[in-house]
Amino acid sequence: MEKIVFGVDVGGTTVKIGLFTESGTLLKKWEIPTRTEDSGKYILPDIADSVLGAMEADGYTKKDVIGVGIGTPGPVDGMGYVHKAVNLGWDYFNLEDTFHNLVDLPVRAGNDANVAALGEMWKGGGQGFQDIVAVTLGTGVGGGIIVREHLVAGANGAAGEFGHMHIEDAETLACNCGGKGCLEQYASATGIVRLATRRLSKDEMPSMLRGKDFTAKDVWDAVKAGDQVAIDVAESFGYYLGKGLSMVASVTNPEAFVIGGGVSKAGEIIFQYTKPYYEQYTFSSTRDVKFLLAQLGNDAGIYGAARMVLS
Amino acid sequence: MEKIVFGVDVGGTTVKIGLFTESGTLLKKWEIPTRTEDSGKYILPDIADSVLGAMEADGYTKKDVIGVGIGTPGPVDGMGYVHKAVNLGWDYFNLEDTFHNLVDLPVRAGNDANVAALGEMWKGGGQGFQDIVAVTLGTGVGGGIIVREHLVAGANGAAGEFGHMHIEDAETLACNCGGKGCLEQYASATGIVRLATRRLSKDEMPSMLRGKDFTAKDVWDAVKAGDQVAIDVAESFGYYLGKGLSMVASVTNPEAFVIGGGVSKAGEIIFQYTKPYYEQYTFSSTRDVKFLLAQLGNDAGIYGAARMVLS
Repeated sequence: MEKIVFGVDVGGTTVKIGLFTESGTLLKKWEIPTRTEDSGKYILPDIADSVLGAMEADGYTKKDVIGVGIGTPGPVDGMGYVHKAVNLGWDYFNLEDTFHNLVDLPVRAGNDANVAALGEMWKGGGQGFQDIVAVTLGTGVGGGIIVREHLVAGANGAAGEFGHMHIEDAETLACNCGGKGCLEQYASATGIVRLATRRLSKDEMPSMLRGKDFTAKDVWDAVKAGDQVAIDVAESFGYYLGKGLSMVASVTNPEAFVIGGGVSKAGEIIFQYTKPYYEQYTFSSTRDVKFLLAQLGNDAGIYGAARMVLS
Repeated sequence: MEKIVFGVDVGGTTVKIGLFTESGTLLKKWEIPTRTEDSGKYILPDIADSVLGAMEADGYTKKDVIGVGIGTPGPVDGMGYVHKAVNLGWDYFNLEDTFHNLVDLPVRAGNDANVAALGEMWKGGGQGFQDIVAVTLGTGVGGGIIVREHLVAGANGAAGEFGHMHIEDAETLACNCGGKGCLEQYASATGIVRLATRRLSKDEMPSMLRGKDFTAKDVWDAVKAGDQVAIDVAESFGYYLGKGLSMVASVTNPEAFVIGGGVSKAGEIIFQYTKPYYEQYTFSSTRDVKFLLAQLGNDAGIYGAARMVLS
């Protein structure tokens, strides 16, 4: 019988848990609430109860289970230490050791964005590649670096934090991080809305975006409809994202960028505006990269968490 | 008896070979010529003869030897394939397999700059760290990324090529690579001379650099002597290098930057001009990084090559 592995994705309100075969078939998934009270002290025991309960219910013994992978918000280093996870109430501690003591199974832990990158490599948009960079374009910009099928955690568990890469000297507005000109200020969903607002105020060019509240999705819909203002915004977005990814390529020389998050729902059109700038700014020896869409959505975390245990 | 390991650093004119104990003591080192004629077909057989000859001379059998690590110019991917090495006459082939067939010992191969980074981590400026980025400021700018004591090769063997990171939009002169505004145009020895030439032509401020040919070393000597023109150049250098390293930090979140190459001979003073810009542009969670000087000089390659075989 094929062995099984658990993938756990801890979020601020719910914990997603997936039960996988070692070859990556998702047998079942479920959620439990994230109890953040009392400095998050119930979170890991709750997960342990749920995992052990699922094993018992389905008749698995510890010999059948390869281990449990856990992705959580906040930095997690390569030794399994959480450096801080404000949303969960957690401070510095070793998540792997702590959870191992609760379940007596092998445990691996990682930052949720990094873990999701591993999931996309395993069973999502990055399947078939070993060296990928996953980029999440959501409310902010996050990411994860996979080198030869292994997640790069970074010294403080903050590898892949390229949302705060400094990309524009001329920016006057501050980013959430306190810096100015971060990639996140242009390539996130909120960044796209800000770019569009700026573009609209520049002149009187007619646009379907004028005179209403709009989202990043509305901007991409307008691009697809041929709206010139929206197309200008897409060019700006592509310039910043392409330039940012050229920096990333010069560091780890990936085979593929796998782009996910809400903004990626606009589809391949985002690559049409990003690739020309990426190619313009990237050195020849690292330029040859695939641009792919993420495929696993919110399940990337449980897939990647499970995959962590297998390497 | 402690086992031994060979570290080989292939250069355009000579091949350096080091014989190490597995704990990293350099027992002896020597050089042989690099015969680049006939598409470099003699290079690997020459190295094999030299390695096997050294074993025989010192009474080592194959059981005593852990393996042979080889660093070469040009991209080498994680599977041991050389993608091209123009200086050596080599095209695409598997260096590890080819050399293994000559010596019947375990073989690991890597790009020379990446391998030197591993050497600095093992026995040089980066000792005691697992996650470092090595930067070589020489005629050009090269580097290597070490993640948890392993070299990151990259999909095409071109990881750590951040000399061609695009760092200045306003540049009008082309870099050797064909791009404009590459980090190498400001942070290399030639880049520093160019920055100084530009600064001198801007106004008439007196400077010890005026009216003569000067090198990057002369510029740093002038900085140390309090020459204001040279200090302005050091500020520009620090701005570009600091900003470039902030990009690198946002990707792999290293513990330390280990800076080598000719420019680093100026000493810690280069950090005095680099760190403030690095800190200004780097996100808080990846900002805490040590700046260290490389220590192994031209021996970094043989140390790193040997270390590759041990992991």
